[in-house]
Amino acid sequence: MFAAEIERAAREVDASIRAGINVPVPKDPGGGFTHEQHKRNYRTIFAAGQLYRLTGEARYRDHVRDLLLAYADLYPGLGPHPAQANQTAGRLFWQSLNDSVFLVNAVQGYAPVRAALSAADRQRIDDRVIRPMAQFLSDGSPEVIGRIHNHATWACAGVGLAGYLLGDRELVDKALLGLDKSGKSGFLRQLDLLFSPDGYYAEGPYYQRYAIQPFAVFGAAIAANDPDRRIFDYRDGILKKAIRTTVDVTHNGHFLPINDAMPDKTLRTEELYHAVAIGYAATKDPAFLSIAKWQGRTVLTPEGQALAADLAAGKAAPWNFGSRLLGDGPEGKDGALVLLRARPAIDGPLLVAKNGVQGMGHGHLDRLNWLYSDDNGPVITDYGAARFLNVEAKQGGRYLPENDSWASATVAHNTLVVDGKSQFDGKWRVGENHPARQLSTGLDGPTRWSIGAIDQAYKGVAIRRALVMLDVDGLAEPLILDLLQASSSGRHVYDLPLHFSGHIIDSDIEFARNLAERPVLGRAHGYQHLWVDGEGSKAGKARLTWMKASRFYSYHALPPAGARYLIVESGANDPAFNLRREPALIQRVEGATDASFVGLLEPHGSYDASAETVVASSARVAALDHRRVPDADLVIITLADGRRIAVAVASDVAAGTAHRITLDGRQLGWTGPVGRFDLAPAGAKK
Amino acid sequence: MFAAEIERAAREVDASIRAGINVPVPKDPGGGFTHEQHKRNYRTIFAAGQLYRLTGEARYRDHVRDLLLAYADLYPGLGPHPAQANQTAGRLFWQSLNDSVFLVNAVQGYAPVRAALSAADRQRIDDRVIRPMAQFLSDGSPEVIGRIHNHATWACAGVGLAGYLLGDRELVDKALLGLDKSGKSGFLRQLDLLFSPDGYYAEGPYYQRYAIQPFAVFGAAIAANDPDRRIFDYRDGILKKAIRTTVDVTHNGHFLPINDAMPDKTLRTEELYHAVAIGYAATKDPAFLSIAKWQGRTVLTPEGQALAADLAAGKAAPWNFGSRLLGDGPEGKDGALVLLRARPAIDGPLLVAKNGVQGMGHGHLDRLNWLYSDDNGPVITDYGAARFLNVEAKQGGRYLPENDSWASATVAHNTLVVDGKSQFDGKWRVGENHPARQLSTGLDGPTRWSIGAIDQAYKGVAIRRALVMLDVDGLAEPLILDLLQASSSGRHVYDLPLHFSGHIIDSDIEFARNLAERPVLGRAHGYQHLWVDGEGSKAGKARLTWMKASRFYSYHALPPAGARYLIVESGANDPAFNLRREPALIQRVEGATDASFVGLLEPHGSYDASAETVVASSARVAALDHRRVPDADLVIITLADGRRIAVAVASDVAAGTAHRITLDGRQLGWTGPVGRFDLAPAGAKK
Repeated sequence: MFAAEIERAAREVDASIRAGINVPVPKDPGGGFTHEQHKRNYRTIFAAGQLYRLTGEARYRDHVRDLLLAYADLYPGLGPHPAQANQTAGRLFWQSLNDSVFLVNAVQGYAPVRAALSAADRQRIDDRVIRPMAQFLSDGSPEVIGRIHNHATWACAGVGLAGYLLGDRELVDKALLGLDKSGKSGFLRQLDLLFSPDGYYAEGPYYQRYAIQPFAVFGAAIAANDPDRRIFDYRDGILKKAIRTTVDVTHNGHFLPINDAMPDKTLRTEELYHAVAIGYAATKDPAFLSIAKWQGRTVLTPEGQALAADLAAGKAAPWNFGSRLLGDGPEGKDGALVLLRARPAIDGPLLVAKNGVQGMGHGHLDRLNWLYSDDNGPVITDYGAARFLNVEAKQGGRYLPENDSWASATVAHNTLVVDGKSQFDGKWRVGENHPARQLSTGLDGPTRWSIGAIDQAYKGVAIRRALVMLDVDGLAEPLILDLLQASSSGRHVYDLPLHFSGHIIDSDIEFARNLAERPVLGRAHGYQHLWVDGEGSKAGKARLTWMKASRFYSYHALPPAGARYLIVESGANDPAFNLRREPALIQRVEGATDASFVGLLEPHGSYDASAETVVASSARVAALDHRRVPDADLVIITLADGRRIAVAVASDVAAGTAHRITLDGRQLGWTGPVGRFDLAPAGAKK
Repeated sequence: MFAAEIERAAREVDASIRAGINVPVPKDPGGGFTHEQHKRNYRTIFAAGQLYRLTGEARYRDHVRDLLLAYADLYPGLGPHPAQANQTAGRLFWQSLNDSVFLVNAVQGYAPVRAALSAADRQRIDDRVIRPMAQFLSDGSPEVIGRIHNHATWACAGVGLAGYLLGDRELVDKALLGLDKSGKSGFLRQLDLLFSPDGYYAEGPYYQRYAIQPFAVFGAAIAANDPDRRIFDYRDGILKKAIRTTVDVTHNGHFLPINDAMPDKTLRTEELYHAVAIGYAATKDPAFLSIAKWQGRTVLTPEGQALAADLAAGKAAPWNFGSRLLGDGPEGKDGALVLLRARPAIDGPLLVAKNGVQGMGHGHLDRLNWLYSDDNGPVITDYGAARFLNVEAKQGGRYLPENDSWASATVAHNTLVVDGKSQFDGKWRVGENHPARQLSTGLDGPTRWSIGAIDQAYKGVAIRRALVMLDVDGLAEPLILDLLQASSSGRHVYDLPLHFSGHIIDSDIEFARNLAERPVLGRAHGYQHLWVDGEGSKAGKARLTWMKASRFYSYHALPPAGARYLIVESGANDPAFNLRREPALIQRVEGATDASFVGLLEPHGSYDASAETVVASSARVAALDHRRVPDADLVIITLADGRRIAVAVASDVAAGTAHRITLDGRQLGWTGPVGRFDLAPAGAKK
């Protein structure tokens, strides 16, 4: 693998050498020529520097030098980038964030060649590129580096790496402790505040991926240059935890698309090549090697080299993709992200419960949202971000207006919408003050669960949701039980959307369909983006079945009496064709005070297009029954073969509380919030 | 590979042995339990018989015997299948076609064990299963076996294989020559009439895939049992040609989805494992081995074994995926299917021009349709069939009503619709009488083309279309030029749809959008299934750019003056959610007599989500100009760098005719229907 990396890098760098130095005057926004060219250049500087370290070949050294000397001509004369957007302007790029990334890469490429340059060249590069960039990104941009935010982490990493390279302790200390060196900002403070004690990043998986590179790279530099800091042991090993959790918050290698996220981001990214190599160097945990194997790539650094050698030596062990309770917030007390996995496979069934914090400006208004994925990919989905990253024609690759109006709205998620408005009336800054609460979590055994709650998302409405993943004998895939309960003294409209991926096969709901004219569901809070395909109702349990790739999925719903069902699709009021068009089922009750929505997702059957075989295209769940018993809710799932599974969810979430109820004359007892009872078919032999 | 096949088959057969014999009374339609169980049984009989041949292990022989004896108990008492549909009823299955497939497989599994059974068992199986099935499918179903149709081929193969097995010449002759042995029907007549001289099958690629198995398997049996017939040399080697062409009419292994076709069918299917193994046995062409390698599978027969051995021995050679002119109709004179490929790769750029016959009941009303695919999959698309194969909830997996109302309609294709009606007024039986004409084809060099025409699709309207695939220096992908011309003495509405796959990025057409209420385009001929997202116009060349996976695609249009553009999507008037929702651009002119539509598809740029790099997201084609010169149309493509490519399409399609025109004072001459002139930028040095 490492030989392939060298070969690939050599090919690219040699092509760059042949093409000659191209350091254009900054002009274009993301996706435009000068933007992409400066990105190519920092990649080339990084790669050529590493190649020089590995091969000692002069042309690599000279190319790094020539590129940086060209920047030495250009950089000092630059003012704010002409295409600056609402973000903080950079010099080389439209936002200073990209300038930070440039510096992080450039220092790593420059370091291996620096000692081999003439004193004059070295000084010119130090004084006209590295130092002024570091200065711009530190004292020159206090409003960036002083934040507790991934942009600041990139800035700190660039500034700190430059400081170590130049032997400039001042720069290093500013990077570590903030411009005033008080420790109220800077890298260490970011480590304190941006990760929960479980290594979960405040903005969610997509930005955890992005932030992990400067955290890991600067962390490794601190470990090398300031070993006494024992940075990898800092805060109980938070850097190592953060790297591990970055891997855990993926499914089939794709970062969970919660908050503002592009769904195509995977572990096969530059950031994760760095993070996995550094994580392996810091822990020697052979599970990192199996992730590297999945990635098929690594970095050209010494850490990457060591990792590739151990992988080649067959030292890899499987990564344990297990269930995890990731406390959210700096102290881990602001709710949680819960991952329930049925099998340790990278693409095994995964239920995600999002019961944490807002996640700053890139967070969505989606407390108590849930997702489900399996080897077919996302099944119960999150839209992610409305954005075409780096596509110039789509507003230069920036977040699009529909990111606010649709993607971050509550109705774009699988969680309760009250009175047609987003949580916190759509105000994410208000949401910053109100995390969800994680009431109980069960990670092990055949019955795993997450219970979360929030009372502040909607004034006067308390919402609680229990999600239970059930392994059932004879069913290849788990069942997902959802019990969402709203309680209020006032009357409300409750909408519970379910966004799913697949083609509708059938339903026992009689929908009145909008066949020849398609209206829009509402006017604001995301509803303006939903076409209404049909509306219907059904007494008792209803079912919607869809198909995705090789499997069928039936969603069984038991909403409050009088509920209606809406089939909708995103894409209305989208003048610039910015939205993907994806279906959802909405359960709606109007004028209710308290309301319980019981849902059951049942993956079933298999479809083999090649062999033209289909099995179990019909649902196995025959009935769904919900009753309130003293201090608990009882949901009874009846399978087609007559077996019944009773799931009891207690009001009291204390782990040690014993509960006892009577079902059909039988006493059922359990301890803790969730009890489960597999009952033989009525009349079956005991 | 062969060892893996044996292992897989042994695993499945052993599971079947453990599960015991399950031969249910026929009840369910496609996708239902009894349907799937009888399918499993014939697969098991086939596999167990082959395993017995390969291993000599008694349990395989006994399992074949026990299964067939169970059928011996069941079969003679069966009447028409209770779930029979509009097709001809079978005994075991809802349509007799599946019974034929059963017999083809059962004979192949029974043959290796037959001699090893007791005389009583053998006779019971012969007399109560094989012979009555063969009799039902021959004399018992004259309306099936007497047709010139794939159903008849399956019947002939089953009957003929049974005849060879039982030593019953009568059955063999009926299979070969028809029930009356006149040769007016039967296998040989099917070979005469169902394939064109180029081995292209009358119903198109999807059914060619399906039909090739009985053709190949029965062909191999004839070669083995009646070597004097020299069946593989019959009709100038039509069987070998047919097998080769079956591979050629795929892209990235997927059968081209023209006519009634499921788009997920690939070379990785049972039919093709048989066909490739038999094709290799008949030709020893090592290119078949590389197809087998792509398939990753083969059959358990001696042919599969020999193929696997040669593949393992490293004898494979690449399949030459080249451009092909596949004449259509029994004599190859009824138009053609034209494949233009830019590179010999299995997933290389491929332009398909469909200028052939109707293709019987599964044919679509799409003369002069075109498609384009590349390594991102289909780009200019065909909806294929409206059907969920074997999905019971979707009308038992049958063709759905929307297959007639949408999928086969002209507007569902990339070809001209006149006055809002499908070709031949929507009547496929009328279409059977009117193939398109293939006027000229150029398969080689950097400028490849197809010119087709039809005058009978719409009364009084002559339509001619030239599609030209242009390799251009500096462009990674070819340009596709489309010149469609309609001429009529009357005034008409001309609609030219372009169905594309991808997400719209931008357009220079100002669309008036239906943002909050979405109307339907029309009432019949497929228009009732199209939602209208917007309508606009633009003087001169217009552009629509979309993105699919890693690439951008710009479609440049230069329709007649006054044309309007409609952005539409399939899915309206679809009460049972049977349709996929896919976009199209329609160019519309009203009240025109003659009309020329010039289109240019430009694939460009690349998007790398992992590396976050984008190149060439803007189109390179800056202008498109069309002028009529004496006896030719001249289209001038101007690239962003100033280069111009002039493409001349002569009215006279004779290959030897010399043409001469003047462009900007320069004399340009060429021979044959298509000329091409790459012109340096104005003012550039010569």
